[in-house]
Amino acid sequence: MTGADIGLIGLAVMGENLVLNMESKGFTVAVYNRTISKVDEFTEGRGKGKNIIAAHSLEELVGKLKRPRKVMMMIKAGSAVDDLIEQLLDFLDERDIIIDGGNSNFEDTVRRTAYVQEKGLYYIGTGVSGGEEGALRGPSMMPGGSVEAWKDVKDIFQSICAKVEDGTPCCDWVGENGAGHFVKMVHNGIEYGDMELICEAYHLMRDVIGLSANEMQDIFRNWNQTELDSYLIEITGDILGVKDSDGTALVDHILDVAGQKGTGKWTAISSLQEGVPLTLITEAVFQRYLSAQKEERTVAAKSYVKVKTDFKGDRKEAVDNLRKALLASKIISYTQGYLLMRNAADKYGWKLNYGAIALMWRGGCIIRSTFLGKIKEAYDTNPQLSNLLLSPYFHQVIEECLDAWRKTVGLAVAHAVPVPAMAAALSYFDGYTSDILPANLLQAQRDYFGAHTYERTDCKRGKFFHTNWLEAKEK
Amino acid sequence: MTGADIGLIGLAVMGENLVLNMESKGFTVAVYNRTISKVDEFTEGRGKGKNIIAAHSLEELVGKLKRPRKVMMMIKAGSAVDDLIEQLLDFLDERDIIIDGGNSNFEDTVRRTAYVQEKGLYYIGTGVSGGEEGALRGPSMMPGGSVEAWKDVKDIFQSICAKVEDGTPCCDWVGENGAGHFVKMVHNGIEYGDMELICEAYHLMRDVIGLSANEMQDIFRNWNQTELDSYLIEITGDILGVKDSDGTALVDHILDVAGQKGTGKWTAISSLQEGVPLTLITEAVFQRYLSAQKEERTVAAKSYVKVKTDFKGDRKEAVDNLRKALLASKIISYTQGYLLMRNAADKYGWKLNYGAIALMWRGGCIIRSTFLGKIKEAYDTNPQLSNLLLSPYFHQVIEECLDAWRKTVGLAVAHAVPVPAMAAALSYFDGYTSDILPANLLQAQRDYFGAHTYERTDCKRGKFFHTNWLEAKEK
Repeated sequence: MTGADIGLIGLAVMGENLVLNMESKGFTVAVYNRTISKVDEFTEGRGKGKNIIAAHSLEELVGKLKRPRKVMMMIKAGSAVDDLIEQLLDFLDERDIIIDGGNSNFEDTVRRTAYVQEKGLYYIGTGVSGGEEGALRGPSMMPGGSVEAWKDVKDIFQSICAKVEDGTPCCDWVGENGAGHFVKMVHNGIEYGDMELICEAYHLMRDVIGLSANEMQDIFRNWNQTELDSYLIEITGDILGVKDSDGTALVDHILDVAGQKGTGKWTAISSLQEGVPLTLITEAVFQRYLSAQKEERTVAAKSYVKVKTDFKGDRKEAVDNLRKALLASKIISYTQGYLLMRNAADKYGWKLNYGAIALMWRGGCIIRSTFLGKIKEAYDTNPQLSNLLLSPYFHQVIEECLDAWRKTVGLAVAHAVPVPAMAAALSYFDGYTSDILPANLLQAQRDYFGAHTYERTDCKRGKFFHTNWLEAKEK
Repeated sequence: MTGADIGLIGLAVMGENLVLNMESKGFTVAVYNRTISKVDEFTEGRGKGKNIIAAHSLEELVGKLKRPRKVMMMIKAGSAVDDLIEQLLDFLDERDIIIDGGNSNFEDTVRRTAYVQEKGLYYIGTGVSGGEEGALRGPSMMPGGSVEAWKDVKDIFQSICAKVEDGTPCCDWVGENGAGHFVKMVHNGIEYGDMELICEAYHLMRDVIGLSANEMQDIFRNWNQTELDSYLIEITGDILGVKDSDGTALVDHILDVAGQKGTGKWTAISSLQEGVPLTLITEAVFQRYLSAQKEERTVAAKSYVKVKTDFKGDRKEAVDNLRKALLASKIISYTQGYLLMRNAADKYGWKLNYGAIALMWRGGCIIRSTFLGKIKEAYDTNPQLSNLLLSPYFHQVIEECLDAWRKTVGLAVAHAVPVPAMAAALSYFDGYTSDILPANLLQAQRDYFGAHTYERTDCKRGKFFHTNWLEAKEK
């Protein structure tokens, strides 16, 4: 039987670009859109003369597909996805495959996978990262859901996705039900963290070390030749070189109010719910909130006048310290993100391949970097690695950066420039490597006011003690 | 008609103590418990010979109450509350009042208030803080819900609650539907923050400045004579003086693994959802998570060996700096907590009286302190105060503490002792008082990879620009 290899619903830019990408790799794609006029606009426009088949109803779309039918939704996350699944179930048969390529919350994907499987069909929720460009030229893809369906979509997904230098595709099976969307969510959180770290480095260079946009451009270009080599460092260099119409740096004319779409927030909330200290990414989310309070900040800045102290150190050394602080902090951010995935995997029963996840992020997406290659190596060497900081490579890098990292945070603290993410990362490192934290006092307080009991260092775990502190203090 | 003034359901320690407290103030209380044997155990035991009436069914309980009937639930938060409301509605009449004194999530209280009001009755969700002791001798109480019911419960609530020195009750009407439980939740988050800050101060004194438990006891007792005067500082002094059987400090034998009941987590999640940077309390929650990873920390501590550098500074000066850092950080924590309440008030339409809230926390509860009196004064002077940092008093304190605060965080960073809450507080201060943050670069990045657009500093807000950065960089 002939017919289209896959059907795609939702012809916004991301959807259109994915269709063009699939078609360019030799697949025939049937397309449908709720606003039906969009279908012909596309097939007569960007899709003209290509193996793209217009469908003007869901029934028509389904009728044009090879079996098992694969229908990919590229629509707004939320209840619209549930509605569309309900409609699709009327036309699809057992063993057909529904795919959600939107930014859905992983908990919804857990629920939908169970629901669709219950009806005898298969469901895939896949993260698609890399924006519009990525969708067209090769995104990073993170599919999860019904593992039985993977063999039927693997060829399409791995053909259209980004590839690393040796040709390995940046797409592999992530895990059961919501695993793909969860990993995509963590990816987005890490993106928030990476961007915040670059902003803090830029802030210190601009306001303490006193560098011009041109000087900073050179520094980011140099950094892109080091372990920091990544898409975000590269575009930061590009940005710093772009001039406004008057010849000054364009970046200096942009308002310092950050926007967001909420996926970083999901990651932070998820870490609070899972009991994982995702301190760096959470600070990155909070900093976007703080940046948005522009009017209040302007008032506060007038109220608390800062006496700017001149930077007296060696600039070259300070910049190199900053590079090391950025690298060490980035290691902490990924460490925390991987811990969150590990905890979620335990909770939801996913068998995540951590090295493969690093590889999926290695190309196509916003956080792509050579750094991720090192993470892959660490997990390939030891798939059971409990914490990235315990891998020999990252251990060595941290040791090399530690002194510079402390100096950088100290410099920022002394000069009134906020580096919340770098400082949170250093606090995490110092806490994680502390055999004894001060929580013994906290447990005593809780036992004092609430009889919550405590454990003792000289007894086995699980044995709980209570002291009547009011009586004891009288002795 | 004679009868009991109020009925109480749920005779665990908190419930029993509230009953005894009410009875001691002249109220007659009818009591009921799901495990019925508990009712007679109580009325024949701790409640014997008092104006406490046993009821062996809900119907009997309701039948013994004066109209409008007031029934207070002191049971486990969650679905049990919904079930009990459903049963009570069978026996109660219009204008009767159902009260939830448990630790319910404010969103549940919003929903339940609407539901009960729809049936023609009134609903109150009240925070009750101060633990078992507080319940018996005078808790801090934070009631919200159906304002029409306040006049009928005010006398009971304000009789049993804690009082400040001049006799003012630590209980007043908070606001509509879930406002009381929301304010209680923020209270608990602030408690997490206060405890974390004390632990960080203790950690620095113990591991950097090198003080003994006895020396630290003296310091906390001295601090309790300053602006830090509070219940938590007081009991910390007590704790440090308590000896184990061998004569050494008991606190040194307690395992550094913190427990929690989850309400701090709710506060942090709520701040992420409301868009308020509640950085300090969120770090306090994360530090409890990190403390719980005792085995991993022990492994990591062996892997990253810390070379302890001796403290060379002046001890007295370092301790005084620490006091100032603690005070300034505490101001930030309350500032952030109040911002969260303000945001929630806007969203849910609550008319919160911020000075009254400070007064409710002034006595009876774990965070009681003279400090809260200063917050009350700040809001009494300016009820529209947008941020505590802008009040003259706190402005002055911050200015006095700022240098010491920076030195303390710098000391901790240099000596590898984590002070995540103090550092997050300082970052917040430095960010909040920054006219220009580095989010201009972040917006450029978002526009580069996702065409998310940006605003300009030289144009009106709401006008959005997009640059084709790839093209622009070639120029």
